[in-house]
Amino acid sequence: MRITFGQMKAQFENVLLKAGFEVERAALCARIFAENSRDGVYSHGLNRFPVFVQMVKDGYVRPQAEPACLEQTGAIERWDGQRAPGMYTATLAMDRAIALAKKHGLGAVAVRNTNHWMRGGTYGWQAVAAGCVGICATNTIANMPPWGGTAPRLGNNPLVIAVPRQEGPLVLDMAMTQFSFGKLQEYELKGNSLHVSGGYNSHGELTTDPAAIRESGRAVPIGFWKGSGLSLMIDVLVASLSGGRTVSQVTAEGTEAGVSQFFLCIKAENLDPAISDEIIRFAKSSPVGAAGEEIRYPGESTLATRLRNEQEGIPVNEEIWQQVLAL
Amino acid sequence: MRITFGQMKAQFENVLLKAGFEVERAALCARIFAENSRDGVYSHGLNRFPVFVQMVKDGYVRPQAEPACLEQTGAIERWDGQRAPGMYTATLAMDRAIALAKKHGLGAVAVRNTNHWMRGGTYGWQAVAAGCVGICATNTIANMPPWGGTAPRLGNNPLVIAVPRQEGPLVLDMAMTQFSFGKLQEYELKGNSLHVSGGYNSHGELTTDPAAIRESGRAVPIGFWKGSGLSLMIDVLVASLSGGRTVSQVTAEGTEAGVSQFFLCIKAENLDPAISDEIIRFAKSSPVGAAGEEIRYPGESTLATRLRNEQEGIPVNEEIWQQVLAL
Repeated sequence: MRITFGQMKAQFENVLLKAGFEVERAALCARIFAENSRDGVYSHGLNRFPVFVQMVKDGYVRPQAEPACLEQTGAIERWDGQRAPGMYTATLAMDRAIALAKKHGLGAVAVRNTNHWMRGGTYGWQAVAAGCVGICATNTIANMPPWGGTAPRLGNNPLVIAVPRQEGPLVLDMAMTQFSFGKLQEYELKGNSLHVSGGYNSHGELTTDPAAIRESGRAVPIGFWKGSGLSLMIDVLVASLSGGRTVSQVTAEGTEAGVSQFFLCIKAENLDPAISDEIIRFAKSSPVGAAGEEIRYPGESTLATRLRNEQEGIPVNEEIWQQVLAL
Repeated sequence: MRITFGQMKAQFENVLLKAGFEVERAALCARIFAENSRDGVYSHGLNRFPVFVQMVKDGYVRPQAEPACLEQTGAIERWDGQRAPGMYTATLAMDRAIALAKKHGLGAVAVRNTNHWMRGGTYGWQAVAAGCVGICATNTIANMPPWGGTAPRLGNNPLVIAVPRQEGPLVLDMAMTQFSFGKLQEYELKGNSLHVSGGYNSHGELTTDPAAIRESGRAVPIGFWKGSGLSLMIDVLVASLSGGRTVSQVTAEGTEAGVSQFFLCIKAENLDPAISDEIIRFAKSSPVGAAGEEIRYPGESTLATRLRNEQEGIPVNEEIWQQVLAL
């Protein structure tokens, strides 16, 4: 079943208005959820929407709260998100980082006490649309062990890097686990093995069996010890710069709320477009490993999916769509 | 065989003076090479020194060249490294990013046409010593295939993230290949297998055999498709922001010279030290996977090695040390 972007956004908007959102904020959050599904990130679009509404009902997300700037030092600001909807605060923070970058060449906003921003890539696309390089990161609840350990002590801590480009921007949106738990579940439900090891089984052996990893709770970080280090550094950056909660503190609360984030922009109106084109051309000039394989730049698939879903409608899980219609 | 930091630095200094370096610049470059060995990064300390001197003799590194600022926009600057020694230019660039951060809250310098900075971590330690968060990256010659491809089209493109901390800063210094070619060679010489897959063999299968990877030239990026994307993005960032050479162009020249780099600092004098302490404490609170395993934060081993080598002397490969004495 496919529905249009307009239908999906309108329905989200109705639900959010009923949940206590003001008109403008309902429109913004509905747009972001619908865009996430339109761009193929279904896990943080329609499929996540009922969970988000429940978080609002449970009081973890405060629909009317207004983020506040705590401190300004030249081109960098520190904010408190006041547990407002994460997409709303992230959009404001990236807008502010863009404005600071336009004025100072670069600008940044660190936000404490905010909420899940859904798809991090959203704010990368926002930065490039404004002619800026955008870099942002968030911490999360603990969901993987540090290198050498067996119990979850590190967050997924997604990192986003986006660079403007005429024919389609480069947008990397990357969590620190090799496979998210959602992805492991997807493989498990289809009865498929992972194509590379995604974690350890309960005997401490690397495995491509998604069920064994979900059972042991030992997903591996990208690059093993390297991603373990990068995840920890992202937590240090977002929490220290914002004065906000760490992965440890978010985890202790038991619900992924009140997280810390960081948004950085660099004015990029005068970048030479030939440079990123040359980098993409060179990457694509490699022979492929097997028939049908493709070499893609970060953001390429997103744009292709967006165009297809705009033409054909957005594919939806009918059960979840019915659930949202009933909200 | 072990020698003191002072002995090593003095010998490097003598050689650089003979190679046409001015007094101050010889002292700076000698200090960085000696510090790299002292901190346990032998591959970019003593072991690399003869190669560096040869690069100078061959004209790839210009000992007397002076980097120039091409453009300043508020808190960000663009420089041309003029192919001066990479460690010299990187030190100047990070110093300038520190000064910009002290003034604007954050600051950045993009450098084109520079040379290999040896150990990236050097400039992370420099930033934290000045009370700043430091982030820097460089591109390199192509040495791994992009995800889906089989021929080298991506650089190692190290990324450094450093955050000040009283009891020892956090310094992540991470290349984008799971194992560097130097590391593969080390395993191969000792007849050891890698502990996780490091690349593909010539049949296109993931392997822990270092010789098979060196033969196929197909090292894997950290996190497979993820590190492939991150490496490409780092190339786009450093080359676009500096207006400098891409991995493709450095590779076409055939020698790793004239690379592009980026240095970013954030003023971090008021960070709450309890935050990074809490993150480290939480990571270390995980049970370990096997007896003898340890959970460490980025930078922890470096500091331990530094203290040991300062007390006991720096272990050196005697053959290379003799070679340097004869330079």
